[in-house]
Amino acid sequence: MKAISIKNLARKLSSLGLESLGNLYSKNNDPKTEQIGNLCNALLELKGEASSIALAEEILAAYSSFNQEEKIEFLLYLETDLAPDKEKVDFAISEYQDNPVQTSIQALHDASESRRLGLFRALNMAPKGIESLITMREDILNALKMNSGLSVVDNDLLHLFRSWFNRGFLEIKRIDLETPALVLEKLIQYELVHEIEDWSDLHRRLEEDRRCFGFFHPVMPYEPLIFVEVALTDEISRNVSELLKEEVNSDNGNAPTTAIFYSINNCLKGLRGVSFGNLLIKQVVEKLEREISSIKTYATLSPLPGFNNWLENELDNLEFLDDSVRGQVKAVLAQPTQELLTNAKLKKILLSLCAYYLLKIKSRNKPSCPVARFHLGNGATLDSINWLADKSENGLKQSTGMMVNYIYDKSTLARNHEVYEQDNAIVCAAEVRQLLP
Amino acid sequence: MKAISIKNLARKLSSLGLESLGNLYSKNNDPKTEQIGNLCNALLELKGEASSIALAEEILAAYSSFNQEEKIEFLLYLETDLAPDKEKVDFAISEYQDNPVQTSIQALHDASESRRLGLFRALNMAPKGIESLITMREDILNALKMNSGLSVVDNDLLHLFRSWFNRGFLEIKRIDLETPALVLEKLIQYELVHEIEDWSDLHRRLEEDRRCFGFFHPVMPYEPLIFVEVALTDEISRNVSELLKEEVNSDNGNAPTTAIFYSINNCLKGLRGVSFGNLLIKQVVEKLEREISSIKTYATLSPLPGFNNWLENELDNLEFLDDSVRGQVKAVLAQPTQELLTNAKLKKILLSLCAYYLLKIKSRNKPSCPVARFHLGNGATLDSINWLADKSENGLKQSTGMMVNYIYDKSTLARNHEVYEQDNAIVCAAEVRQLLP
Amino acid sequence: MKAISIKNLARKLSSLGLESLGNLYSKNNDPKTEQIGNLCNALLELKGEASSIALAEEILAAYSSFNQEEKIEFLLYLETDLAPDKEKVDFAISEYQDNPVQTSIQALHDASESRRLGLFRALNMAPKGIESLITMREDILNALKMNSGLSVVDNDLLHLFRSWFNRGFLEIKRIDLETPALVLEKLIQYELVHEIEDWSDLHRRLEEDRRCFGFFHPVMPYEPLIFVEVALTDEISRNVSELLKEEVNSDNGNAPTTAIFYSINNCLKGLRGVSFGNLLIKQVVEKLEREISSIKTYATLSPLPGFNNWLENELDNLEFLDDSVRGQVKAVLAQPTQELLTNAKLKKILLSLCAYYLLKIKSRNKPSCPVARFHLGNGATLDSINWLADKSENGLKQSTGMMVNYIYDKSTLARNHEVYEQDNAIVCAAEVRQLLP
Amino acid sequence: MKAISIKNLARKLSSLGLESLGNLYSKNNDPKTEQIGNLCNALLELKGEASSIALAEEILAAYSSFNQEEKIEFLLYLETDLAPDKEKVDFAISEYQDNPVQTSIQALHDASESRRLGLFRALNMAPKGIESLITMREDILNALKMNSGLSVVDNDLLHLFRSWFNRGFLEIKRIDLETPALVLEKLIQYELVHEIEDWSDLHRRLEEDRRCFGFFHPVMPYEPLIFVEVALTDEISRNVSELLKEEVNSDNGNAPTTAIFYSINNCLKGLRGVSFGNLLIKQVVEKLEREISSIKTYATLSPLPGFNNWLENELDNLEFLDDSVRGQVKAVLAQPTQELLTNAKLKKILLSLCAYYLLKIKSRNKPSCPVARFHLGNGATLDSINWLADKSENGLKQSTGMMVNYIYDKSTLARNHEVYEQDNAIVCAAEVRQLLP
Repeated sequence: MKAISIKNLARKLSSLGLESLGNLYSKNNDPKTEQIGNLCNALLELKGEASSIALAEEILAAYSSFNQEEKIEFLLYLETDLAPDKEKVDFAISEYQDNPVQTSIQALHDASESRRLGLFRALNMAPKGIESLITMREDILNALKMNSGLSVVDNDLLHLFRSWFNRGFLEIKRIDLETPALVLEKLIQYELVHEIEDWSDLHRRLEEDRRCFGFFHPVMPYEPLIFVEVALTDEISRNVSELLKEEVNSDNGNAPTTAIFYSINNCLKGLRGVSFGNLLIKQVVEKLEREISSIKTYATLSPLPGFNNWLENELDNLEFLDDSVRGQVKAVLAQPTQELLTNAKLKKILLSLCAYYLLKIKSRNKPSCPVARFHLGNGATLDSINWLADKSENGLKQSTGMMVNYIYDKSTLARNHEVYEQDNAIVCAAEVRQLLP
Repeated sequence: MKAISIKNLARKLSSLGLESLGNLYSKNNDPKTEQIGNLCNALLELKGEASSIALAEEILAAYSSFNQEEKIEFLLYLETDLAPDKEKVDFAISEYQDNPVQTSIQALHDASESRRLGLFRALNMAPKGIESLITMREDILNALKMNSGLSVVDNDLLHLFRSWFNRGFLEIKRIDLETPALVLEKLIQYELVHEIEDWSDLHRRLEEDRRCFGFFHPVMPYEPLIFVEVALTDEISRNVSELLKEEVNSDNGNAPTTAIFYSINNCLKGLRGVSFGNLLIKQVVEKLEREISSIKTYATLSPLPGFNNWLENELDNLEFLDDSVRGQVKAVLAQPTQELLTNAKLKKILLSLCAYYLLKIKSRNKPSCPVARFHLGNGATLDSINWLADKSENGLKQSTGMMVNYIYDKSTLARNHEVYEQDNAIVCAAEVRQLLP
Repeated sequence: MKAISIKNLARKLSSLGLESLGNLYSKNNDPKTEQIGNLCNALLELKGEASSIALAEEILAAYSSFNQEEKIEFLLYLETDLAPDKEKVDFAISEYQDNPVQTSIQALHDASESRRLGLFRALNMAPKGIESLITMREDILNALKMNSGLSVVDNDLLHLFRSWFNRGFLEIKRIDLETPALVLEKLIQYELVHEIEDWSDLHRRLEEDRRCFGFFHPVMPYEPLIFVEVALTDEISRNVSELLKEEVNSDNGNAPTTAIFYSINNCLKGLRGVSFGNLLIKQVVEKLEREISSIKTYATLSPLPGFNNWLENELDNLEFLDDSVRGQVKAVLAQPTQELLTNAKLKKILLSLCAYYLLKIKSRNKPSCPVARFHLGNGATLDSINWLADKSENGLKQSTGMMVNYIYDKSTLARNHEVYEQDNAIVCAAEVRQLLP
Repeated sequence: MKAISIKNLARKLSSLGLESLGNLYSKNNDPKTEQIGNLCNALLELKGEASSIALAEEILAAYSSFNQEEKIEFLLYLETDLAPDKEKVDFAISEYQDNPVQTSIQALHDASESRRLGLFRALNMAPKGIESLITMREDILNALKMNSGLSVVDNDLLHLFRSWFNRGFLEIKRIDLETPALVLEKLIQYELVHEIEDWSDLHRRLEEDRRCFGFFHPVMPYEPLIFVEVALTDEISRNVSELLKEEVNSDNGNAPTTAIFYSINNCLKGLRGVSFGNLLIKQVVEKLEREISSIKTYATLSPLPGFNNWLENELDNLEFLDDSVRGQVKAVLAQPTQELLTNAKLKKILLSLCAYYLLKIKSRNKPSCPVARFHLGNGATLDSINWLADKSENGLKQSTGMMVNYIYDKSTLARNHEVYEQDNAIVCAAEVRQLLP
C-alpha cells in the first residue's frame, strides 16, 4: 500500500462524504495493516450502502499492493480481530439452553458466524471482487503451513465459495477456436497434466476430432474453473504421447466410436476444496451422447501421479520382490529413461507393481492414488494399465511412463459407485487383476 | 404429485442405477409428501453426485405439481424433519465449552445449520433450480400467517438468497426496445406503482427521452430483480399523470437537464428481504452522469402508499384539526375523486397533513412512510409535496393524488445519510417544513 | 430540407474542409432540389473518401425532410440528370464494333451504367443508408403511376438490391419471445394475411406449439425481410380462425405430426421484386425436419386473395351457371356474412367455382391466383379447398372465407416443379379436381 | 474432383429430383471440367430455386478439389463459355440506335452482362460461398500472368466484390484478447509489415497501450478484411524496432497523447482492388478521439517498401552523386547490415536520397512510393524520415532501415488532399525538404 494510494483513498472517501474514515485512515504513523483494518471495520458498518462498493474496491487494491509480510499481517488480523464474538456465542448458548427451539438454534448459528464472513461478502461487491477473494484464499493456502491458525480464515472462505459456486450457477461451455483468446491463454497456463507447448499444440487440441469443455461461473466469463480435454477416436487410446502427436485425419470419413478423456485440470488454486470434476465428466458424456451418436465408449487415459514416489519409499518393504529385481527397479527409478524401459522383464515387474499399487495400497480404505480414487468414486471401471504410454519427462518421472484407462459405462456407474462407497470394492478388468504379483 | 410422475421417477431412478430409492419412493400407500420426504433424505445423502441433479429436478417437479395443502405439508416437513440436529448442537456446545477456540465455534456454527440448507443447495443444482426456490419462498411467505413455525424455513432461504444474490454477482442492464420481449412482458407484470396499460404505454416508457434499468442475476437473464423507470426532462417533474401522457418531443433538440425516477419496482416476491433498491438508484445516477453530461438534477417523483390509510386511522386523534375540517377530509377519503379535490382549502389542509405525516409520524424513530424511509435513508432530500400529481384511481386512493419529490444530490448524500442514521434528522426543503400544521 | 439543415450542412462541410461545396450548396435562392443535386454531383466526385460518408448522410437527411412534391422533384432529377451518358455509350459501341472482344463488351457494360448507380452505392455508405434507400424505392414505386419515367430509376435500385440481398448474405432466424421487442413490433406491423390484434395475440403465435422464422440481412438485424408463421399440430389444419384461437395444449404430451404454414408476409415494400419466399419455406422445412423428427407432413393453410374480385368481374361470363345461382352468388359477394354462407347449396357452388378459379383461370399459362402460382411453382401439391376456413372480415371479403391447403412433400417437389414449369400442369388432389363444375 | 464426389453428386441431385442433371454429370468419360461446366449451365437455369443452393455447393466443392491444371481449365471455361452473348449485345445496340432512350440503354447494359455474373451470384448462395469466390479470384490473379485473357473474368468478380463489400455493409471492430482466437490467428497470418513472431508478440500488440481495429463483413465474422495496429504513446514514435519491444508501462499513469499507426495490412488477396484502407484509418481516428480525449496527435510510422529496389536500379543515373559515394551506397545496398549503417556520412546521404525518392520520383505525377501515395492521397502530411527505425532484416533490405512518419491532422486533411489531387503537391515538413540533395 503505497503512500500515494493512501492519499487517493483519502480523496475518494472525502468525495463520498466519508471524511471521518479518511482521517482515520491517513494517520501515516500507524502500520498500514492497522489502517486497512480500520477500513475493514468501517466497511462492516456500512453494509449495503452504495459507498461500500468504493470502500471494498479500495481495501482490495490496498491488499493487492501489499508485500508478502504485510499480506500475512492482514490475514492474521482477519484471524484474530474478525473472529466470532465469544460473548455473543455464550449468550446465544444460554438462550438456547433456556429455550431449545429452532429459532434459538438459528440465533446461535448467526452468533457463531465470524465477522470475517460479513467482510468477505462486502468485499465481493467490488468490481472483480470474486477474483480478488479467490486470490486471497490462494495466499492463505500458501501461508497455512507457517501459520496454521489461518485455517479458520480458510474455512470461512471455503464455506462462502461452496455457496457461491453452487453447481446450479455454473455453465458448461465448449472451448474451441471461436472462444476468446483470453480463455485459451488460460488453458495454456493451467494445463499441468500434459503441458501445452505452444500455440500450434493448443490449436491441435481444439480441432474437429478433439473437444474441450469447461465449467464457468457467469461473473467470470474468461476464467475456466476446470476443463477437460477429449479426443474422438476409433478405439481406446492407450498412449498419450501418440495421441498428442496425431495428425487430424480428415479424409477418414469414419464417425468416431470412442471418446478419450485425456486431461482434466482444475484451474484456480483458490477454489481448492470446491469440487467440480465428477460433474464435469458426466455432463460432457451426456453432451457428446447427444451430439455424436456414433460414440459408444467413454474412457479416460489417466496419469499415475504418485506411483514412482510410492515405489521409492516402499521398495524395500515389498517382500515379494527379490533383491536383483529390487536393484533393477531402483536403477530405473533413479533414471527413468526410455532406453532402460525397453526391457521386457522390467516391464512385467513394473506393470505388476502398478496393479499392486492401484488395487492394494489404500488410505482410509480407498486407493492411495488420487486419480484412481476420483474415477473409481465416480463409478468408473479400471480397464487397463498401459506400458510406455506417456514418454514425456514428466510421465517417466511420475510413473515410469505408465498410464491407466478408466471406463465410464453408464450402465454400471451407479452400481460401481455403490460397491466402492459401501464395500470399498474396486471394479476392475480381469487383465488388470491378473497383473498382481 | 401424480401417480404417473411416481412411475416416471421410479424409471428415472432405476436408469440412474438407484433402484433402491425408486422402491422406497413407489410405495404408493404412503402419503405423497412422505414419499418426497424420503427423496429429500436421499438427495442429502448423495451430495455432489451427478445423479443428484436428476433427483433434485424430480423433487422440484413433484413440489410444483402439489396442491396448496400438499405444499404446506411439505413445508412443514422441511420445518420439522430437516431441523438442526439438537444432539449435534449440544455436543458442539460442550466441545466449545471445554475448549473455547475459533475452530470449536466454527464446529458449532456448522452443527447449528439446519439440514434444510443442504437440501436447498442441492435443489439449486436442478435446471431452473433457483427460480423454483424463489417460488417456494413465495409459498412460504404466503403460508406464514397460518403457520408461523415456518419462519425458520423462511430464515434459511433468506439467508441463502442473501448469499447468492450478493451485489457482486448482479448486473445492471438497460432495458429498451432491443431487449428480449420476455423481459418486457415482465415489466408489464411487475409494474405496480404506475400500471402499464398496454404495449404502446410500455413502448412510450422506453423511447429516447426515457430510460429503464434493471438488476439481473446472470443465471436468470430474462428475470429482472428490480427495475427503475426514468424520464429525462427539462425541469423537475411534479405530476406523474402528465409525465406518463407526454409525447416524445424530438424536434426539441435541447439536451435534458433533469432525470426523474418516477417508478421503482421489486419483481420477485420470493426475494423479499434481499435489498437492491438503494444501490440501483445510485448506480443509475452514475451511469446517466457518464452518458448524458447535460443532466444536473436527479430527483424522484414518488408515491405515498400509506397516507390515506394512516389518515383514516388517525384522523380523530389529530387535535389541531377542527371538526368541520375533519368532516371534509373524511368525505374526501371516502370518495377521493378529482372533483372533490379541486378545492383550495382542502388542498391546503391535505398538503399540511401530508407534511405532518412525512415529518412527524415515526416508527422506531424513522418516518412511517416506507418510501420516505427508503429515500431519506439513501441520503436524498425531501424537496416538495405535489398536489394532484397522480390522478389515477390508485393515486387518489392511496394519497388523494399527492406525490413527493426527493432529490439525489451527490454533494449532500453522505452527510444526509449520516444525520438521518445517527440523529434521526430529516433533511427537507424549507417549503415543505412550512406546510406543517 | 429546412433552412437550418442547410446551415448545418454548410458548417459540416466546412469542418470537413469542403467549403467549396458548402458555398455551392448554400445559395439559398436556388430551389432546394437543385442544391441537393449539386451535393449529389459532389458525392459522385468524392468516391471513396471518408468525407463522402458525411455527405451521403446529409443528402439522405435532406431527402427524408422533403415533402411529397420535393421528393418527386428529386427523383426526377435522378431520372434525368443522372441518366447514362449517351456520348460514352455511343463511343463504347463504336469501339466494340471496331473490336468486338469481351473487354469491349465490358467497357460497353460500364458505359451504359447510369450515374444513379454510383450515387446509390455512395449513399449506402451513410449510417442506415440501406434503410434509407429501401424507403426511397418505396417512394419511387408509389410515384410510378404518375411518373412512369421513374421506372428507369426503379430498375437501377432493384438491380442493386438484388445484388445486395443475395441469398448468400441472408440469415434465417427463429423469432420467439427471446427476440428483441423491436422485431416483434415489426411482426405486428407487417402481418397482413392474418392481422395480429394485440400483444397477447402475438404472444400466442410464439408459444411452444408455434414457430416463426424470418430472413434477416446482417446489417439490419431488427428488420425482418419476410417471415413465416407455423403451427405444429396433429393433423392438417383446415380452418385458420380456429387455429388462431386455439389454446396451447401443454398437457398433451404427443409430439406434433404436422407443420402448418398459415401466414407468410413480405415486410419491406421497397424490396418488391427481390424474392425470398420460396427459399424461406424450404429452409424452414429443413430446419423443422432436423429439430422435430415426429413431423411428417408439411402443408400450408393459404388465402385466396383475388377470388371474390375475379368472381365479381367474371360472374356474368360463367356460362355453366344458371341465373338463380348467379343471383345467390351476387348476393353473397355483395355482403359476405357468415350467416349467408351457412347454406349447403351455396357452399357447393362456391367450392366448385373456387376449384374452377384455381385450375382453369390462367394468366400466361399459369394460375391467376398469385398464391397458387407461388406454391405450385415451388412444387407443392394443391391438396384441398376448405369451406369457412377464414371467418375474419378480410377472409370473407376476399374469398368468402375459403382457404386452400398446399402440401410440401419433398419426394414430389422437384417433379411437380418440373411439370409445372414445362407443361403448365397443376398437381392436385383428386378431391379438388372433382369439385370442378 | 474425385470419382467419389461424382457419385455423391449424382446421389444428391437425384435426391433433389434432378436426375437428369445427375445423368448429364456422371458420364465419366467426359473431362471433369466439361462435367462441371454442364452443372454451371444447369445452375444458371435454376436461378432462385432452393435446389440451386445444393448445386452451388457441389460446384464449389468440385472446384476446390481440382488440381492447378483443372482449375485453370475451369477458369478458361468461365472466360469463353460464359462470355457475354454477342448476338444479344448486337441486338440491344440496334434497338438502342433505333430508339436511344434510357430503357434501351438499360437493356443494353443487361445484354452486355456476361453469364459469369449470374453464375457468381448463384454460387454465392452456397454456404461459405463468398469465401469460395474470394479464393477463386485469388486463383485468377495468380493465373493472369500466363492467361491474360482471364482478366475479363477477374473484372467481373471485382465488379461484384465492389458491390458486395460496399462500405455501408462493413463493421469496424476492435480486436483484442476477448476476440475469438480464430481471428487472432488471422492477424498472425496476414501481418506482413512487421511480422508477428509468436503468441507473446501478438499478446503484446493487444495490451492496454495498444489498439487493433479491423473491418469485417458481417457474413465473415472471423475474417478481418484489413486491420490496423496502433500504439498509444507519449510522443511521435520514430523507431518501430523499439516500439515493438517496449514493455507495458502500467505504473505510468499518464494518459497517452499520441496514436501511432505502425502497421496496416490487407488480408484477403482475392479482394485486391476493393479499397478499405483510407476509410479505416479515418474511422479509427474518430473512434480514438471519442474514447481517449488526451490523444492530440495521430501519426503513422510507415515503411518504404520500394526504396532499396529503386535505388539499386537508379543509382548510376543519379548525377548529383560522386563515384565514391555511389560505391559506399552500393556496398550497403548489397549487404544492408546495422554495422555498415552506423556511419554518419552514409546516414546523411541515404536520408537525402530518401527525401529525393519520396518528393521527386513520380509515376503519373504522384509519388512512386505506394505508401506515400496512400497517406498523402488521404491528406496526411509527410513529417519526417527516421534513420535506423526498422532494424529487422526486412526493414534493412527494403529501405536500409529508414521509416517515415505521416501525420493525420484533421484540420488540414481536406486541404492537403485537394492540393495533392489537383496540383500534385506534396505537403511536407520543412525538415524533410531540407534533406533534399
